[in-house]
Amino acid sequence: MQGGDDRRSYDRGTSIFSPDGRLYQVEYAREAVRKGSATVGVTTDESVVFASDTSTRSPLLERDSVEKIHDVDGHLGVASAGHVADARRLVDEARRFAQTERLRYGEAPGVETAAKAIADVVQESTQTGGMRPFGVALLVGGVVDGGPRLFETDPSGTPSAWRATAIGSGSDEIRDYLETEYADGLGTSDGVALALDALRTGTDGITPGEAAVATMDAEGFRTVDDDIVASHFDGAS
Amino acid sequence: MQGGDDRRSYDRGTSIFSPDGRLYQVEYAREAVRKGSATVGVTTDESVVFASDTSTRSPLLERDSVEKIHDVDGHLGVASAGHVADARRLVDEARRFAQTERLRYGEAPGVETAAKAIADVVQESTQTGGMRPFGVALLVGGVVDGGPRLFETDPSGTPSAWRATAIGSGSDEIRDYLETEYADGLGTSDGVALALDALRTGTDGITPGEAAVATMDAEGFRTVDDDIVASHFDGAS
Amino acid sequence: MQGGDDRRSYDRGTSIFSPDGRLYQVEYAREAVRKGSATVGVTTDESVVFASDTSTRSPLLERDSVEKIHDVDGHLGVASAGHVADARRLVDEARRFAQTERLRYGEAPGVETAAKAIADVVQESTQTGGMRPFGVALLVGGVVDGGPRLFETDPSGTPSAWRATAIGSGSDEIRDYLETEYADGLGTSDGVALALDALRTGTDGITPGEAAVATMDAEGFRTVDDDIVASHFDGAS
Amino acid sequence: MQGGDDRRSYDRGTSIFSPDGRLYQVEYAREAVRKGSATVGVTTDESVVFASDTSTRSPLLERDSVEKIHDVDGHLGVASAGHVADARRLVDEARRFAQTERLRYGEAPGVETAAKAIADVVQESTQTGGMRPFGVALLVGGVVDGGPRLFETDPSGTPSAWRATAIGSGSDEIRDYLETEYADGLGTSDGVALALDALRTGTDGITPGEAAVATMDAEGFRTVDDDIVASHFDGAS
Amino acid sequence: MQGGDDRRSYDRGTSIFSPDGRLYQVEYAREAVRKGSATVGVTTDESVVFASDTSTRSPLLERDSVEKIHDVDGHLGVASAGHVADARRLVDEARRFAQTERLRYGEAPGVETAAKAIADVVQESTQTGGMRPFGVALLVGGVVDGGPRLFETDPSGTPSAWRATAIGSGSDEIRDYLETEYADGLGTSDGVALALDALRTGTDGITPGEAAVATMDAEGFRTVDDDIVASHFDGAS
Amino acid sequence: MQGGDDRRSYDRGTSIFSPDGRLYQVEYAREAVRKGSATVGVTTDESVVFASDTSTRSPLLERDSVEKIHDVDGHLGVASAGHVADARRLVDEARRFAQTERLRYGEAPGVETAAKAIADVVQESTQTGGMRPFGVALLVGGVVDGGPRLFETDPSGTPSAWRATAIGSGSDEIRDYLETEYADGLGTSDGVALALDALRTGTDGITPGEAAVATMDAEGFRTVDDDIVASHFDGAS
Amino acid sequence: MQGGDDRRSYDRGTSIFSPDGRLYQVEYAREAVRKGSATVGVTTDESVVFASDTSTRSPLLERDSVEKIHDVDGHLGVASAGHVADARRLVDEARRFAQTERLRYGEAPGVETAAKAIADVVQESTQTGGMRPFGVALLVGGVVDGGPRLFETDPSGTPSAWRATAIGSGSDEIRDYLETEYADGLGTSDGVALALDALRTGTDGITPGEAAVATMDAEGFRTVDDDIVASHFDGAS
Repeated sequence: MQGGDDRRSYDRGTSIFSPDGRLYQVEYAREAVRKGSATVGVTTDESVVFASDTSTRSPLLERDSVEKIHDVDGHLGVASAGHVADARRLVDEARRFAQTERLRYGEAPGVETAAKAIADVVQESTQTGGMRPFGVALLVGGVVDGGPRLFETDPSGTPSAWRATAIGSGSDEIRDYLETEYADGLGTSDGVALALDALRTGTDGITPGEAAVATMDAEGFRTVDDDIVASHFDGAS
Repeated sequence: MQGGDDRRSYDRGTSIFSPDGRLYQVEYAREAVRKGSATVGVTTDESVVFASDTSTRSPLLERDSVEKIHDVDGHLGVASAGHVADARRLVDEARRFAQTERLRYGEAPGVETAAKAIADVVQESTQTGGMRPFGVALLVGGVVDGGPRLFETDPSGTPSAWRATAIGSGSDEIRDYLETEYADGLGTSDGVALALDALRTGTDGITPGEAAVATMDAEGFRTVDDDIVASHFDGAS
Repeated sequence: MQGGDDRRSYDRGTSIFSPDGRLYQVEYAREAVRKGSATVGVTTDESVVFASDTSTRSPLLERDSVEKIHDVDGHLGVASAGHVADARRLVDEARRFAQTERLRYGEAPGVETAAKAIADVVQESTQTGGMRPFGVALLVGGVVDGGPRLFETDPSGTPSAWRATAIGSGSDEIRDYLETEYADGLGTSDGVALALDALRTGTDGITPGEAAVATMDAEGFRTVDDDIVASHFDGAS
Repeated sequence: MQGGDDRRSYDRGTSIFSPDGRLYQVEYAREAVRKGSATVGVTTDESVVFASDTSTRSPLLERDSVEKIHDVDGHLGVASAGHVADARRLVDEARRFAQTERLRYGEAPGVETAAKAIADVVQESTQTGGMRPFGVALLVGGVVDGGPRLFETDPSGTPSAWRATAIGSGSDEIRDYLETEYADGLGTSDGVALALDALRTGTDGITPGEAAVATMDAEGFRTVDDDIVASHFDGAS
Repeated sequence: MQGGDDRRSYDRGTSIFSPDGRLYQVEYAREAVRKGSATVGVTTDESVVFASDTSTRSPLLERDSVEKIHDVDGHLGVASAGHVADARRLVDEARRFAQTERLRYGEAPGVETAAKAIADVVQESTQTGGMRPFGVALLVGGVVDGGPRLFETDPSGTPSAWRATAIGSGSDEIRDYLETEYADGLGTSDGVALALDALRTGTDGITPGEAAVATMDAEGFRTVDDDIVASHFDGAS
Repeated sequence: MQGGDDRRSYDRGTSIFSPDGRLYQVEYAREAVRKGSATVGVTTDESVVFASDTSTRSPLLERDSVEKIHDVDGHLGVASAGHVADARRLVDEARRFAQTERLRYGEAPGVETAAKAIADVVQESTQTGGMRPFGVALLVGGVVDGGPRLFETDPSGTPSAWRATAIGSGSDEIRDYLETEYADGLGTSDGVALALDALRTGTDGITPGEAAVATMDAEGFRTVDDDIVASHFDGAS
Repeated sequence: MQGGDDRRSYDRGTSIFSPDGRLYQVEYAREAVRKGSATVGVTTDESVVFASDTSTRSPLLERDSVEKIHDVDGHLGVASAGHVADARRLVDEARRFAQTERLRYGEAPGVETAAKAIADVVQESTQTGGMRPFGVALLVGGVVDGGPRLFETDPSGTPSAWRATAIGSGSDEIRDYLETEYADGLGTSDGVALALDALRTGTDGITPGEAAVATMDAEGFRTVDDDIVASHFDGAS
């Protein structure tokens, strides 16, 4: 590797900049995200849709236990790509945060508030010693305070809002697809179709049983049934 | 070793990613699991069955003290592969957790809840400084809240649910065997037979006295008597 | 790199001087600022104006979520260049500080007071172990206590007051431009025009939709509408 | 040393796995045990017998102060091999544990309970930073809760139950001897004879005055008089 | 660099001596002071005078915000050379100290007391781990308890009293000048003239607008107006 | 040095074993003891006798301030060899311990109890991070609870009881002498003579004024007068 | 440097022994003492006399602020050689100690008690991590409890009592001189003369104005006037 010697001096401590102002440990954590199976997020006029690749190593593994999409508090949803165990820890943080907010203010936190609270936890892990960054990116979505909102939090702890995006393996291809195909005025069903089509672009040969889909609208978080997912696969191929 | 120089720079600290987004210390802990003697877990229609290789170094060692299968609270069972002392620590965590839940909610925690609580402890050990990961994988099983559930927790702190699986030495062969032979509609006795057959696939020349078997059903955790185990060996060979 | 061996010995620990009395980690954090997209600050006779490059990677990213300019407490504004997540943490510090001051003294802190409070947090991160410096520079502006004030805080934790300045990518060119073009006696609208012209000097081919502008005057913090920004672009080009 | 370079990278920190899943510091602590003078433990139908090599460097050293066998609480006995100072610390832990249990439950802890409590302390030292493992193995024996029990705790913190075993220098030879000679149905006196015979197998030219012997039965912990030990030597040679 | 290898082994940790009994990190911090712009301090019969080089990078920078001279509590003045952010932290310490003393004893601390309190904070940073030394030297002056006193505190934490001295870039030349020109019996105006003349010796081509001057006498701390400074320049050149 | 490379890897951290199970830092601390001036301890039928080499660098040094023998509480005596400052710290620990015991139980602790309390402090320093071992060995003696007892504590934290022994420079020769010359049935005066004769064996050309002698008997701790020491020298040579 | 490689491995951590049982950081701190300007201490029949080299870098430096001799509490005096800032910290410790003792026991601590309290602080810094040793030696003197006492504390934390001694640059020559010239039966004035003569032996070309002298007798601590010092210089040369 060219320049390996230089880089190698700065990439082993969390709390350290390289001479060109980069945080290598955060970039390596991004690599862990890139290795995770893909997750797509799409906002529609009335909802947010998540579609995740949940293909498994073995037919004996219960697919439902491959937790890529989490119902945080009945309204907010979180989908992840990267280290599964790290994602679970952040989802726990999100749940605790939602519960505390509800107790304090009598209502659940908005999507942006929740995404930023998660991002704060992640940023802290990149600046303070004694802890590695989180090897995971999250999509946070919901229709809590008016319109549908979709946020991404990355391993640097930066939150960003998207109309549609993807994280994990193949996310560049998926995002290219979404930039071409995304349009305003989608209904939830259109959103599910777009999300699944996009997911298939980035994941070679995914089958209906290997895609998990969830929607968040004003009514709350809902998992989409496998046969509905399958019918979208039939319609699309 | 090819690439040894690169890897060597990133595998000595728990809280550090390698440039390709891997946590080497967690992968080395998985190697410790792979070195441990095998344990099989099988779900049946009414129960979860554990079968473990408890062959010992010496005839003077009391086989019962080779704790591969633990009764957590009368209902939940935990079986391990890898560092025995690390397993004991996690079983202690599980017992404390079950006891606290019981005090707080008046009933024992479900299998999934318990498996995730263990996984949280394990994940923490992989991200926070001052501690190495746990060199052990666990199977967590029981029929606490409705149907039989079987979870695995690995050294990264990821929980996953299985109909049947194996951990430890020879687990790849055993899982291959289970994928071929596992079928729905098993009774507990079928499960014991399947678990023992699978265990024998992965452990060369294991004898009846060297296999420990336990079942968890709606009645609770039960150790299977050595002669029943022996009769399965006779029937199978 | 010439002299690389010498430098390399002193640039990996936050709390360490090099033989020539430099703090390399702070200088590397400055490099992170130089890599961030540009932000301009201009004081007028009645206000402070911020103009930031908020061009995004993707058309699907919601531009408003690219937070370069923050309303701290209705009066104070903070604009940043560099690591977005680090900026958010300092803005949180600023908000907490403003709130505490308000509770304690019944009124919001002045611009200088707030800028120095932020600088204190930054300095601490450069001297005490267990934490890296903040990879971000901030502009802090407002008309809180009499006249318009504009401060910059850099990664060393040094606050400085400016009539007009820029941080981030291209800031040297922008500052050169400002030194030539800045004059006393500007109104807010003149300030917006000057800030946008300056921003365009340092950011190649920025379009109206990619510039965020905000003003702080005696009435408080206000975001400038996109079409007003666009009209300035039309007028200037 | 072949492979020395690889190993050397992983054996200096307590909280670290080697690529093949080993904890070298624990293995080196086992080497410290192997260097300690031998101790034998034997269970009989009514008791547990310890026999230790207490040969000393100098005739002026008071042999009784070479503490290889410790009376923990009148019932439990602990015998050690390895670093004497480390053994003392664990015996102190055992004493504190026995006292606390007695206060809490009105009775002394069982042998298994005590052995596991010691093992917990040892495991902790192998996983948490800031402390090296204990360079000592212990035998824990007694007739507290029904039958005679004999446990070994090793430097990894793993407890195991034995009918008869040995730790320290020459323990492999001694255990071979015990596997051949051990039989069920022993009385205490038979046990003492067997333990001394076994000890002599592993310790070249030990004399009666250099062997310490203790028994634990339902009546409690008792040191065996030197002349009884000597008479066994006479009978055996 | 000759001897570089030897030195390099001892200069990266704060809390470490080199074989010849030196603290390299403290010496490097002195280098940071030598890089800072110059500050002169002169005692007169009735006052202490500070004159600092406050030349700035840009005409848009508000010169008053280049804080080289600080009014601590209306009586005590502190002037600095070196890392500006580090100086601000020590000035904060001095302010807190003065306030506490006032509350405790009903009057402001003397110059010597204050200088020693600052020096204590600096010494601590050179001996205790987890913190780098302060890259700044301070002049502390005032007429609090009788006569005018002028102290310097250096990065080792040593306080020393001077009739006249200088810190920062060119301080050797300035001190040479002062040793020749300083005389007893000066009035405040003479002191301002001497301080400015000395400052100009060490700072090539400084202009009136680039020199900040303050006096501390029995009435308290006072900033000298720019035109008075300018008139001294006119008179001297 | 043969094998230097291997050893060098394991001898710089307190809390670390070498591959052959040794704690090098403890062995190096023993080397510090071997460099200290010699101290002899002898038990008689009614007392314990200490004799120490207190030869000094300069005739102007007050010999009494070379504290080799310490009166702990009027009954217990402690004599040291090795780092004087480390010895003082352990003597302080012993004094605190004796005082606490006296308050708690109404009587001073026995010799064995005190020696073990010191040994516990020493062992802790060899296992826990953040502290080096104590570079000192102690003799602890007294006639507190029945008969005369003499203990040694070494840098590993191991206590051992002796009829007669020596620590420090030349201790091997002195112990050889004691093994030949020591006999039961000594009176205190015989013990003083033996201790001085032994001390002279290991310390080339020691003069009467350079030997400090103390006795501990049922009456308590007593320093032996210099002329009595001198008369023993006269009688012996 | 011969043997440099070996030494270099053990001299960078405070809490570490070298293979030959040395603490290099303490020895390097002694080197810092050897670099400091000299201080002499002499006991007379009625007093303790300190004489210190206080020659300064510049005629503008106020010689009184070069604090080599400190009045601790009106009775005790402390004189130092080595790092001035470290000395000030220990003098602060001594003052706090004297004050606490006075509050607790109604009278000031004796010289020996105070010297040992200082030595305890110093020893702690050599054994516990996170702090470097103190680069300073102290003389502690006074006539508090009967006769005049003079103690030295060195960087290892060892206290020793002297009739006369010296620390700092040239102390070997000064001590040689004192060993030849010191006699019992001195009065205070004789002591001042002897101390100054000795000081001049070790400090080339010291002038009257560069020597500070203080006496401690039953009346307390007193600084000797410069003209009395000068008269001694006249009489001696």
